[in-house]
Amino acid sequence: MSLTAVLSRIDADVPQALDRLFELLRIPSISTDPAFRTACDRAADWLVKDLESIGIAAEKRVTPGHPMVVGHADGSGPHLLFYGHYDVQPVDPLELWDNDPFDPKLEDTAKGRVLRGRGTADDKGQLMTFIEACRAWKAEQGTLPCKITIFLEGEEESGSPSLVPFMEAHKDELRADLALICDTAMFESKTPAIVTMLRGMLQEEITITGPDKDLHSGYYGGIAINPIRVLSQIIATLHDETGRVTIPGFYDGVPELSDQMQAQWDALGFDHAAFLRDVDLSVPAGEQDRTPLEMTWSRPTCEVNGIWGGYTGEGFKTVLPAQAHAKISFRLVGDQDPLKIREALRGMITKMLPADCSVAFTAHGASKACVIDADDPRFEKALQALSEEWQVPAAYIGGGGSIPVAGYFQDILGTTPLLIGFGKDDDALHSPNEKYDLESFHKGMRSWARILAALT
Amino acid sequence: MSLTAVLSRIDADVPQALDRLFELLRIPSISTDPAFRTACDRAADWLVKDLESIGIAAEKRVTPGHPMVVGHADGSGPHLLFYGHYDVQPVDPLELWDNDPFDPKLEDTAKGRVLRGRGTADDKGQLMTFIEACRAWKAEQGTLPCKITIFLEGEEESGSPSLVPFMEAHKDELRADLALICDTAMFESKTPAIVTMLRGMLQEEITITGPDKDLHSGYYGGIAINPIRVLSQIIATLHDETGRVTIPGFYDGVPELSDQMQAQWDALGFDHAAFLRDVDLSVPAGEQDRTPLEMTWSRPTCEVNGIWGGYTGEGFKTVLPAQAHAKISFRLVGDQDPLKIREALRGMITKMLPADCSVAFTAHGASKACVIDADDPRFEKALQALSEEWQVPAAYIGGGGSIPVAGYFQDILGTTPLLIGFGKDDDALHSPNEKYDLESFHKGMRSWARILAALT
Repeated sequence: MSLTAVLSRIDADVPQALDRLFELLRIPSISTDPAFRTACDRAADWLVKDLESIGIAAEKRVTPGHPMVVGHADGSGPHLLFYGHYDVQPVDPLELWDNDPFDPKLEDTAKGRVLRGRGTADDKGQLMTFIEACRAWKAEQGTLPCKITIFLEGEEESGSPSLVPFMEAHKDELRADLALICDTAMFESKTPAIVTMLRGMLQEEITITGPDKDLHSGYYGGIAINPIRVLSQIIATLHDETGRVTIPGFYDGVPELSDQMQAQWDALGFDHAAFLRDVDLSVPAGEQDRTPLEMTWSRPTCEVNGIWGGYTGEGFKTVLPAQAHAKISFRLVGDQDPLKIREALRGMITKMLPADCSVAFTAHGASKACVIDADDPRFEKALQALSEEWQVPAAYIGGGGSIPVAGYFQDILGTTPLLIGFGKDDDALHSPNEKYDLESFHKGMRSWARILAALT
Repeated sequence: MSLTAVLSRIDADVPQALDRLFELLRIPSISTDPAFRTACDRAADWLVKDLESIGIAAEKRVTPGHPMVVGHADGSGPHLLFYGHYDVQPVDPLELWDNDPFDPKLEDTAKGRVLRGRGTADDKGQLMTFIEACRAWKAEQGTLPCKITIFLEGEEESGSPSLVPFMEAHKDELRADLALICDTAMFESKTPAIVTMLRGMLQEEITITGPDKDLHSGYYGGIAINPIRVLSQIIATLHDETGRVTIPGFYDGVPELSDQMQAQWDALGFDHAAFLRDVDLSVPAGEQDRTPLEMTWSRPTCEVNGIWGGYTGEGFKTVLPAQAHAKISFRLVGDQDPLKIREALRGMITKMLPADCSVAFTAHGASKACVIDADDPRFEKALQALSEEWQVPAAYIGGGGSIPVAGYFQDILGTTPLLIGFGKDDDALHSPNEKYDLESFHKGMRSWARILAALT
């Protein structure tokens, strides 16, 4: 049967696929740093050329930032769009890398062979699993399995400023029957997974001002209000003693997990002790009446991501500061409305302010959670394909982080996103010595081939 | 009578006294910056030479840091020691100065003539008031009024690392009947004052550690403990709702003000509204059952001087940090024991720690309050002399800040310190455009002449 031939072709071509990926990895396409602008451009050019080589008519599309790469191949059957990103994170601190981050290598490790280098896992290695699957298909079948659109971004690691405008401007071109997104990981590094819930995000910066200048705590200590103390009191009240967030209306729109999903999650046997032990912790610190998986996937959170005020250098200065600052973010789920929560947070803080203090709020990101309907029969087919490839029952899982593009496909294009990735928990994303397991790359290509067969 | 002649001589010699002070002010003796080491040395040399010129046998004494200047003049009557410091604060930000900080000028302002430049008020201008009084006395009487020791430090603005070892090593040489210290200000810029209470200090740095590395709040948010939240909860509990500090035993050794002192302070008519309005505040924020003057002079305080943790740069990073830090200091009064309070604070925080968190404490300064017995008849004489010079009843006041040298005179030498200074609240100590009123300089010299006459 044809799938068998495609899989064999993938197996035979692993060395060539690695050569191609390494070429792409050698281009230092760091999107946040203007010094690497031409590198980003070269990565886009490389991808255009590579897509053309497998019969996908591709173009580099200009944006105010880094270019998009968009390619189309006609075909019968469903129209599948594939999304990935070709930009990578910065590499500092460079001294913590064992090798040049942009000179990728295949390494033998105690846990097996790995591809080492910046972008191996996030996201060049992952995006190439799909392109290589298409290449093998084309080589064996003479044609791609269906109508395919490739949509690759170069600004994912720098906040995707051009993404929404581009999608809005090219709705008709990008709308598809299903959007395949390869930028996620397997469950606990061993279970292939489809992500069906991604938490949303609300980010707010808070500045409390007391006196109009920094004061000497000898002269003013005791009589003048200290904004650090005020800020600490505010932060201390954001959670109650059970771990629930105290902002009025915060839990509006937070759904309970369906019995079915709860049962499936229970069956995953999440080893939260190991998850926490990895970072030297032992006790789940969230809402005390929730399971650890709920805490990370399906319950909203409030975290202080940064705090600062007064003297923070070496030694001591007895300053009574004029201001104290915090960056606070919320992970949102279900139908929680980030803008309503922002208003409620601001109202609560304003109400708590003592005399002589003022507060300034700076709005940062706000996005709703992404909830994908897993009842879609295509999801079952993809799950089945993954289970067959990995010889382990694949699972629907949640994701604690945010992948905004998934929501954009839903909201802007009305296209259902299907999130499948082959990353592992120890890939060191965004960190020195990033890697991608050779198994992830190889079985990733094979997985896409199976999914393409299942969906077409 | 002889005092009249001395005062007239001071009046006549103001221009020359200013010339001398300006010479000293032109030497940029910034003690914290190694680049100014030779300047500190030159300032000490200048003072040795100047003291010699009025018959005080002076020497530059080597320390591991900047030199001390010690001079002696024999005489009959009491042995008076005078302390001041010849080092100055750094001048940055330099762009905020209207003139070169080390090119002092006499300026006319709406509030009268001022000496402008770094060190005019802190402390070169103040220390020269005493030396000039001695010079005038010598010129008129042919001799100094009594046995006098001059003890000038060059490290006051950089923590006085050599002071205690030097005093310990030269106890016999420095012990005197009274130690005159000129490094303080007048009450509300108008009432000459003797400071009889200086708050002590306890400084502690606290680091709360949760996970062993910074985490992504998407993956770990909700399940992992956040040390910023823990630190905020700790800080929020350091005061109760009435403004009292909650550390067990914190108020042990805090005396109530005597009725007499309370009455004298009430009579000062402290304009706390104006004091707070200066820094854009209006409500005394300390213990709610205390007067504003008590809050700043005679009650202990707890202030957070600095806090930091997580991401504090531009924009947003959804980090869940491994650590959060705070610098906390306490102003102490009466017999409060800083070391006992340090232990109680550490115990209280350790007890509050949730599972998975650890705390590290770094001890910084610790000094008891300095309480000087104002019943000493010499204090009454000095108070009287000040009242006569300024034509305003002089007052015993407290000082919110710490002047550690006062305590050292008590504890190391058994010598009572007498703190009198002529600074004003708007002198801009440690800030750009530091100034010292010509009135402070002129009446300061005259005040010391009167005090010398009163004490001998």
